[in-house]
Amino acid sequence: MARRGRLETPHGPVETPVFMPVGTQATVKAMTPAELEDMGARILLSNTYHLYLRPGADLVAAHGGLHGFMQWQGPILTDSGGFQVFSLGELRKIREEGVEFRSHIDGSKHLFTPESVMDIEGKLGADIAMAFDECIPYPATYEYAKAATARTGRWAARCKAAHCRENQSLFGIVQGGMYKDLRAQSAAELVEMDFPGYGIGGLSVGEEKPLMYEVLEHTTPLLPQEKPRYLMGVGSPDCLVEGVLRGVDMFDCVLPTRIARNGTLFTSQGKLVIRNSQYKEDMRPLDEQCSCYACRHFSRAYIRHLFIAGEILGARLATIHNLHYLVSLMAELRLAIEENRLGQTAARLLNAWGY
Amino acid sequence: MARRGRLETPHGPVETPVFMPVGTQATVKAMTPAELEDMGARILLSNTYHLYLRPGADLVAAHGGLHGFMQWQGPILTDSGGFQVFSLGELRKIREEGVEFRSHIDGSKHLFTPESVMDIEGKLGADIAMAFDECIPYPATYEYAKAATARTGRWAARCKAAHCRENQSLFGIVQGGMYKDLRAQSAAELVEMDFPGYGIGGLSVGEEKPLMYEVLEHTTPLLPQEKPRYLMGVGSPDCLVEGVLRGVDMFDCVLPTRIARNGTLFTSQGKLVIRNSQYKEDMRPLDEQCSCYACRHFSRAYIRHLFIAGEILGARLATIHNLHYLVSLMAELRLAIEENRLGQTAARLLNAWGY
Repeated sequence: MARRGRLETPHGPVETPVFMPVGTQATVKAMTPAELEDMGARILLSNTYHLYLRPGADLVAAHGGLHGFMQWQGPILTDSGGFQVFSLGELRKIREEGVEFRSHIDGSKHLFTPESVMDIEGKLGADIAMAFDECIPYPATYEYAKAATARTGRWAARCKAAHCRENQSLFGIVQGGMYKDLRAQSAAELVEMDFPGYGIGGLSVGEEKPLMYEVLEHTTPLLPQEKPRYLMGVGSPDCLVEGVLRGVDMFDCVLPTRIARNGTLFTSQGKLVIRNSQYKEDMRPLDEQCSCYACRHFSRAYIRHLFIAGEILGARLATIHNLHYLVSLMAELRLAIEENRLGQTAARLLNAWGY
Repeated sequence: MARRGRLETPHGPVETPVFMPVGTQATVKAMTPAELEDMGARILLSNTYHLYLRPGADLVAAHGGLHGFMQWQGPILTDSGGFQVFSLGELRKIREEGVEFRSHIDGSKHLFTPESVMDIEGKLGADIAMAFDECIPYPATYEYAKAATARTGRWAARCKAAHCRENQSLFGIVQGGMYKDLRAQSAAELVEMDFPGYGIGGLSVGEEKPLMYEVLEHTTPLLPQEKPRYLMGVGSPDCLVEGVLRGVDMFDCVLPTRIARNGTLFTSQGKLVIRNSQYKEDMRPLDEQCSCYACRHFSRAYIRHLFIAGEILGARLATIHNLHYLVSLMAELRLAIEENRLGQTAARLLNAWGY
């Protein structure tokens, strides 16, 4: 099911499958745009909910959109804020019109509708905007999932009608929870609306990985061959491999940057927790097979010292390493697809990581 | 009194007058060595007290010294820890042998003597080591200052006798508090010992600037013309200019990096506090006359957003800017000395900053 593709955007092409680093607040945490470019990142994700609240879409628009504001010259995708407002729990109320919610920053009241979100995403000016959807929690009853999935379909139609930003593609988002028939209905409905690409939402929301893979494997064949498929919010190395094996083209996740700031590193041998005392006098790089700036220069002992001493450079080097690791992993998977040996490559990687 | 010079070190020459960014814990906070090099920084300072406690001098030595540990290929100077242990207040006891103190990290008990500090600085392996001295607080009685200054002289002799690291210069430190006769005695004693360079310590410890300038102006002529003079712990733009005017060659200070992380920026118009709401929609760079990475790319509005949102990139961009500002300022002062117009340049700068 794996595919090797190319996404064309107003800010240049993106080879797929691809991992998109997340810049929630118009910055990939601890990174400059120059560093992201150097490590081979091609497309970034940013966040409608966060940017709407702070600094506001109008200020971003005054800079010529996110590209000007955060000074990233490559493609950008904005999520719709759907996931974030649903994650607010008791701070939000879902109605047919949209979602009323309170800001996590100051408690102020706001309303997101498909139309208002299209307006905000238009101002943010990313190359790809995501439709406003309802993310179904896990577990959810069939009735709940059915109603939410149907609403996501109606909202997708309203997003499509409202979306008018030039040089911006709008992707629909397939929901349906863990119910295969609802996934099928959702996919059919969205495909009928003919979006230029499709997000697969509502996975990696607390379910076990085998269930996620099963639902994913059921969903990707329901989507058109020639359009990009984006598995939202997924980004551990094993899930990237499993997703690519099931026909996913695009991924994003805060995991690599978040765990980096906490001192957890991806390596060719699995995860490494740099604060552990076993690395106190370890002169080796984080990963002897890695060519990132951190691994080319610094010892584990030095990076551990930076974490123990609370130095920002520790978070920076760990973030550079983890993002470089995932970007390089995707390049390796793309090459394996081209050379028709993805099965072996995937098995070798998963085995080395201890899966 | 201003001089244009060149300091020769095992890691290359340094044009003076020069400002040395401070890497207390073997990292200039929030910066990579590559960024420091890019902005034109030539020599860094690191900290014996901090590195002795964490990660320990032996681990640094195992990396081939600080150059290998922190991956900085240019010259490095280490202070002696004198200032830090005296700053511990009730956590330290001064004796003729040395200073007994408790770690600010875990309360453990330690003893610094001139001999042990030379051993530690030898292991850290900087190009320039500073002698272990006693920093006199302000205000201090004449009797106190006299006794401390005499002890600093005896300790300097012990440092000189104990120092044996190859490819490392040992600088003596002139003390004497705010008493001119004690400054003269201290300088005479140290000059007699024939160090290759001299620190001027115990200034910028709480006294008013006019008093500092007066004592400085009295002290520099007491030091040999052909040897470098290092005004320790001084680094605001106005003090750098005033120091250069009084014949100082080297400066260091945590101020530019510390206030940067707090959102205070040096500019050609004086200080700018980026969190202020007046910059909310300000599309201009931090300083329109600056060519640093931050000013070449980002608006005040964006950098303010980063600070308000608590993003690490804000601290990074502000640090790059402030260090670049001081490094460029020193280059401007060096050129003005060469062209014999330092007086005008100094007057113009101080006036633009509002002094």
